[in-house]
Amino acid sequence: MVNQASRGFPITLNDIRDAVTVLEGMAVRTPLLESPVLNERVGARVLVKPEVLQRTGSFKFRGAYTKISRINASRRARGVVAYSSGNHAQGVAYAAALHNCPATIVMPSDAPNIKIENTRGYGAEVVLYDRYSESREEIGRRICEEKGATLVPPYDDTDIISGQGTVGLEIAEQLGDLKASADRVLSPCGGGGLISGTAVALDNCLSGVELWGVEPENFDDTARSLAAGERVANAPEARTICDALASPMPGEMTFSINSQLLNGCLVATESEVADAMVAAFETLKIVVEPGGAVALAAILAGHLDVRGQTLVVICSGGNVDPELFSRILAGERSFRG
Amino acid sequence: MVNQASRGFPITLNDIRDAVTVLEGMAVRTPLLESPVLNERVGARVLVKPEVLQRTGSFKFRGAYTKISRINASRRARGVVAYSSGNHAQGVAYAAALHNCPATIVMPSDAPNIKIENTRGYGAEVVLYDRYSESREEIGRRICEEKGATLVPPYDDTDIISGQGTVGLEIAEQLGDLKASADRVLSPCGGGGLISGTAVALDNCLSGVELWGVEPENFDDTARSLAAGERVANAPEARTICDALASPMPGEMTFSINSQLLNGCLVATESEVADAMVAAFETLKIVVEPGGAVALAAILAGHLDVRGQTLVVICSGGNVDPELFSRILAGERSFRG
Repeated sequence: MVNQASRGFPITLNDIRDAVTVLEGMAVRTPLLESPVLNERVGARVLVKPEVLQRTGSFKFRGAYTKISRINASRRARGVVAYSSGNHAQGVAYAAALHNCPATIVMPSDAPNIKIENTRGYGAEVVLYDRYSESREEIGRRICEEKGATLVPPYDDTDIISGQGTVGLEIAEQLGDLKASADRVLSPCGGGGLISGTAVALDNCLSGVELWGVEPENFDDTARSLAAGERVANAPEARTICDALASPMPGEMTFSINSQLLNGCLVATESEVADAMVAAFETLKIVVEPGGAVALAAILAGHLDVRGQTLVVICSGGNVDPELFSRILAGERSFRG
Repeated sequence: MVNQASRGFPITLNDIRDAVTVLEGMAVRTPLLESPVLNERVGARVLVKPEVLQRTGSFKFRGAYTKISRINASRRARGVVAYSSGNHAQGVAYAAALHNCPATIVMPSDAPNIKIENTRGYGAEVVLYDRYSESREEIGRRICEEKGATLVPPYDDTDIISGQGTVGLEIAEQLGDLKASADRVLSPCGGGGLISGTAVALDNCLSGVELWGVEPENFDDTARSLAAGERVANAPEARTICDALASPMPGEMTFSINSQLLNGCLVATESEVADAMVAAFETLKIVVEPGGAVALAAILAGHLDVRGQTLVVICSGGNVDPELFSRILAGERSFRG
């Protein structure tokens, strides 16, 4: 195995192991779920890693808690700031509350209600902005300066990537417990924190396994960046029901890992995502939000030939408004206009 | 502690320990989930045991697999028969399939579609009957005689109760892992298999913890039986959305345990059950069927003063049709007429 630092990765396996120690007793070790009905439908063994069951309903708690635990106490007392469409917001808000640390979260005004309300429910102050005309980075920076608070970035940060990477380490360990070996791991991909951390873990612990990202249509920036060999952005006018994955372009750190370790990046349509949410409801009894369901969607839609294989599919979040979930269960498959 | 056999219990802790061995690697060790938002709402620490994540979507797999594994091979080859509104059906169908054993399941014609389809999906033959005019016991007996098959009863059986009791043993162990001690454990109660097995486990492993059953309105047979000191039945015309809990009266074996070990049995209305399903969706990201949600419903509705306590609440199943779930998410609270 090539030494990871020598490949210029911003984190190594040891950073992820350190995050495991920080998260022990705080993060849920989410199980690997399996449904014979789902296996039959896909024609493969599908092991689902349900990060919907993670504290605050998504994997984001892992990175946020890891990051906040490492801010020194006097600085932490002045608070943390994050900008997020909602899952990182909730992860930071709750992780901050556990550290008795004030949190200000900059959220787009069109984020799902459930995410805005839960973020406030965890005790954070929420500042709303217009996703399409204002810069969340600028608003976040200004609040940091005013309060002397520390920014908790959504993905381009070594502590954040290390925390999210604990998902990959758990997958490797849990496959060992099951005496199973996986052919492919598939993960939703937005800014790339979850999948890059997972990539570093798997690269060390599961030799030979393929790792694929999955993005929603209109936000296939990582797929296009992999093809271009450099980071390219999404169109400013792009829209998606996968609000959790609507980041402008791949992160610098995350793409430096993903460009070397991903086997590829697939794209799922909104209709395929909705079908996957219903399949998860019916066969796994878990609530998956649109952005959390893209990897399962790609598999169910047959975007990769996986027959006879063993797959691990990460369902990364479950924070979806009841109204939208209800409409999707009832069959709605057109979400624009 | 009084010796359990001396109190006339049909099973002991050792029987449950044996079932743990049988189920190892087969049943999901469901985690204890916790949501700060839910805790805040209840004013207590609420640890949810999500048996919705169990194989086939409910705890029933535990008992069914334990029972079928103990039928001798030549007899098992002639098949098993079960009668069930759906969760036991699926548990038996899948446990039989794992033993390469044919299964015939007698199901009420008004059972949720998802349960009938999944039961067939696991490879079982389904025989439908009218819940209100035909005797499922009689139909089951006749098929057993014709085929030389073995009946897998839904609850009044020592292997079944021992298998379901592994839920209680896991709760005790998982509380230990969390270094938490519970004041009360609450479980849905239908025929009484889950709660009686859990009662025997807790009676041995968690001294001082209270155990409460919860039933849906119109099917409060265990509550009334506890009051009467003997088993009393539900009205033949009784109806409920909690199909999983619509058994005619407490089991003989299960009531012999429950009448000694339960601290009481609460009743939740259908509207409270629907509210609890939405709360589980929003805060825990799990899909809970009506019958699986009664214990959470009783807590959320304030039927017990639990302020400041630590509770374990079993959510016993998640097999609910998408149509009904969608209507409940959208606010429907009246289910008859």
